[in-house]
Amino acid sequence: MQLQSLNQTQLQALERELAEQYQSFQAQNLKLDLTRGKPSSEQLSLSDALDGILAGNYKAEDGTDCRNYAILDGIPEIKRLGAAIMGLPVEQVLAGGNASLTLMYQTVQHALTIGFNGPDSAWQNEGKIKFACPVPGYDRHFTICEFFGIEMIPVAMTDTGPDMAALTELVSNDPSIKGVWCVPKYSNPTGIIYSDDVVKAMAELPKVAGANFKIFWDNAYAVHDLVSTPNPLANIFDYASQAGTDDAVLQFCSTSKVTHAGAGVAFLGASQANLASFIKGLSVSTIGPDKVNQLRHARFLPDMDALQAHMQKHAAILKPRFDMVLKYLNEDLANTGMGEWESPEGGYFIAFDTLPGLAKAVVKLAADAGVKLTPAGATFPYGKDPEDRNIRIAPSVPGLDELEKAMQIFVLSVKLASVRQALAA
Amino acid sequence: MQLQSLNQTQLQALERELAEQYQSFQAQNLKLDLTRGKPSSEQLSLSDALDGILAGNYKAEDGTDCRNYAILDGIPEIKRLGAAIMGLPVEQVLAGGNASLTLMYQTVQHALTIGFNGPDSAWQNEGKIKFACPVPGYDRHFTICEFFGIEMIPVAMTDTGPDMAALTELVSNDPSIKGVWCVPKYSNPTGIIYSDDVVKAMAELPKVAGANFKIFWDNAYAVHDLVSTPNPLANIFDYASQAGTDDAVLQFCSTSKVTHAGAGVAFLGASQANLASFIKGLSVSTIGPDKVNQLRHARFLPDMDALQAHMQKHAAILKPRFDMVLKYLNEDLANTGMGEWESPEGGYFIAFDTLPGLAKAVVKLAADAGVKLTPAGATFPYGKDPEDRNIRIAPSVPGLDELEKAMQIFVLSVKLASVRQALAA
Repeated sequence: MQLQSLNQTQLQALERELAEQYQSFQAQNLKLDLTRGKPSSEQLSLSDALDGILAGNYKAEDGTDCRNYAILDGIPEIKRLGAAIMGLPVEQVLAGGNASLTLMYQTVQHALTIGFNGPDSAWQNEGKIKFACPVPGYDRHFTICEFFGIEMIPVAMTDTGPDMAALTELVSNDPSIKGVWCVPKYSNPTGIIYSDDVVKAMAELPKVAGANFKIFWDNAYAVHDLVSTPNPLANIFDYASQAGTDDAVLQFCSTSKVTHAGAGVAFLGASQANLASFIKGLSVSTIGPDKVNQLRHARFLPDMDALQAHMQKHAAILKPRFDMVLKYLNEDLANTGMGEWESPEGGYFIAFDTLPGLAKAVVKLAADAGVKLTPAGATFPYGKDPEDRNIRIAPSVPGLDELEKAMQIFVLSVKLASVRQALAA
Repeated sequence: MQLQSLNQTQLQALERELAEQYQSFQAQNLKLDLTRGKPSSEQLSLSDALDGILAGNYKAEDGTDCRNYAILDGIPEIKRLGAAIMGLPVEQVLAGGNASLTLMYQTVQHALTIGFNGPDSAWQNEGKIKFACPVPGYDRHFTICEFFGIEMIPVAMTDTGPDMAALTELVSNDPSIKGVWCVPKYSNPTGIIYSDDVVKAMAELPKVAGANFKIFWDNAYAVHDLVSTPNPLANIFDYASQAGTDDAVLQFCSTSKVTHAGAGVAFLGASQANLASFIKGLSVSTIGPDKVNQLRHARFLPDMDALQAHMQKHAAILKPRFDMVLKYLNEDLANTGMGEWESPEGGYFIAFDTLPGLAKAVVKLAADAGVKLTPAGATFPYGKDPEDRNIRIAPSVPGLDELEKAMQIFVLSVKLASVRQALAA
């Protein structure tokens, strides 16, 4: 069934049928939640061995007593894990506290007020500055920009990453654009992986950008694959080294969706010069990260083999949930002309694009039938999706039964909104 | 022996005798360290039960799964502990991450750039601002001011707290003074406790100060008593309520020197209005504190009785160290006219005032004989002690044998510097 091929009578009949189904769901008074990209209890339990893992041995491999003050950039064994995740030498890694979001906030603040390359390089010297924001994107990135008064310029995403021709033109014409947000692997929310060409073009972007341009490379889902032979993400620092732009790349990742969310370890990967500058600023606001928790994580995940074996257990829990979402989208909405989506092979989200102007309506219909979705627009700067199309689906928390019911309501809401729009046209 | 009563010949003889002793210490090639106010390994081991204490139960008392995202202000049971330490209702407490220093940095930043009482209250609107800094004080407080470009105005400390007459006059004559740093109990570094009168006058200070004045009440040593019946510190919020200045007080404390330093829980105590404003700002930079570690601490220290029993074990380890320092000061330097000090009944420091102009010389003499001391001047804004007198002694880390040797060298260095100064006069 193609929506566009239906005549008015067919549309009316379909609307009645869908509305009836919708009312029967409403009558069930469901309370389902597809909003938060957080692990389920089942996933969290995979890491319950963390507490108690030290067995009284609080010494890091270099002899550091992790129970006492000292060390701003993390203990060696956890830095090694972060280095392996990010594909960087350990000298280019800082292991921090429990949130990569905090490291992103701090690095933006550092670039803005202190400057990675001395006081003259602080963005605030140049007055009003801007960030390029591939959309749809991650709302918390946008919130950081809003907080610091950084204007956000949207750039379209494609299924291989940001539209690099558009981004390159934008950045080369406006030296007040000082940064770009990227979630290069299993992009939040579309789930795509940046292609090699995109990574290469991104690494070359600083050459045409204004001074002190930085790429915020939020590699949040670096090891969060759902398939056994995932498509690889190119190492941006390899391309940056070729382009001579190492100092323009700041990479982030964390164990938040590996072990316990909010009780893990976050990492920053950067050039040694950038790290040294950042750590100097950091010394004002902290006595150092929680090294005891870093040590727990290093003992729990001693190397990449252990990490990958652990992530396969996550995949075994998550994959059926992604499959369920995609099953309903494919079976009920493919070839209907009512929306578009990608089929991510990792990460935490599936993004659905409705027909123009319907995202808010679909979110409201779903909510009124008991399915909570992330507010439409949340994946755009200032919460404003200009076409009102994008909806982020987070399938990790509900059980499979709940998820199935939620997806039945979701596709029904999409159909109902689409048919009603066609009727009103 | 009074230095001032010695004639030139006696001074010369004494100098020769002291120099000989000094050389014999130098020959021992010692490496002793009295710099850092951090717990000893023995103290840290008191809390080794923390790791593993959860025994697989990661649920907070309100049902929160501490392993997942959520909650910016901490879980109920740990907030209750912070509330008991600070003498506040739990509604006025935020439990944060691993460092009260970070909370101080963040609250200064919040007051400066966001404003606790809306954008109009942000200090930055008023251009250049200042802080009053009782001296000697804590270097990391001063570093925060320097970082944010806040000018520091020193105010003298007495043995009952800051000179409140001087502070009140200063603040009432200069509305650009927006804050004051206080370590009210076992003051860093002099070890004194603010008297009731001082606490009351402090709570009344905001009434004569410029708009949006804040008292940074760093109650770092709230429960760090060395004696069984410690002198109490008055509750500043009681006086603030009477004076109507609740919104001007920000209190800080942490478990850093209770459990594992740098792996504990920090607390902010403030009016509910201030807390709400702060938490709103915090939501930009963090996904919340490490609740798993908060839960560990709440299980380990379920109430004030447990906390106090635990602190007595710390006291049993620390008290002999303080006694050792004071023994050498009292036996070798009392009534010599070569210096002054307090006898703290808690905290982590003993501060020694040399004769004017000798602190740097004493620190250098001690260093050259193998005893590392905090750099002279570190306890003053910009690292500048105008009289070059104050030296901070941190006796917690060395073993008693080492500490004894270090104190022999310290008092010898004081005598040698004093005698040489008298000879040169």
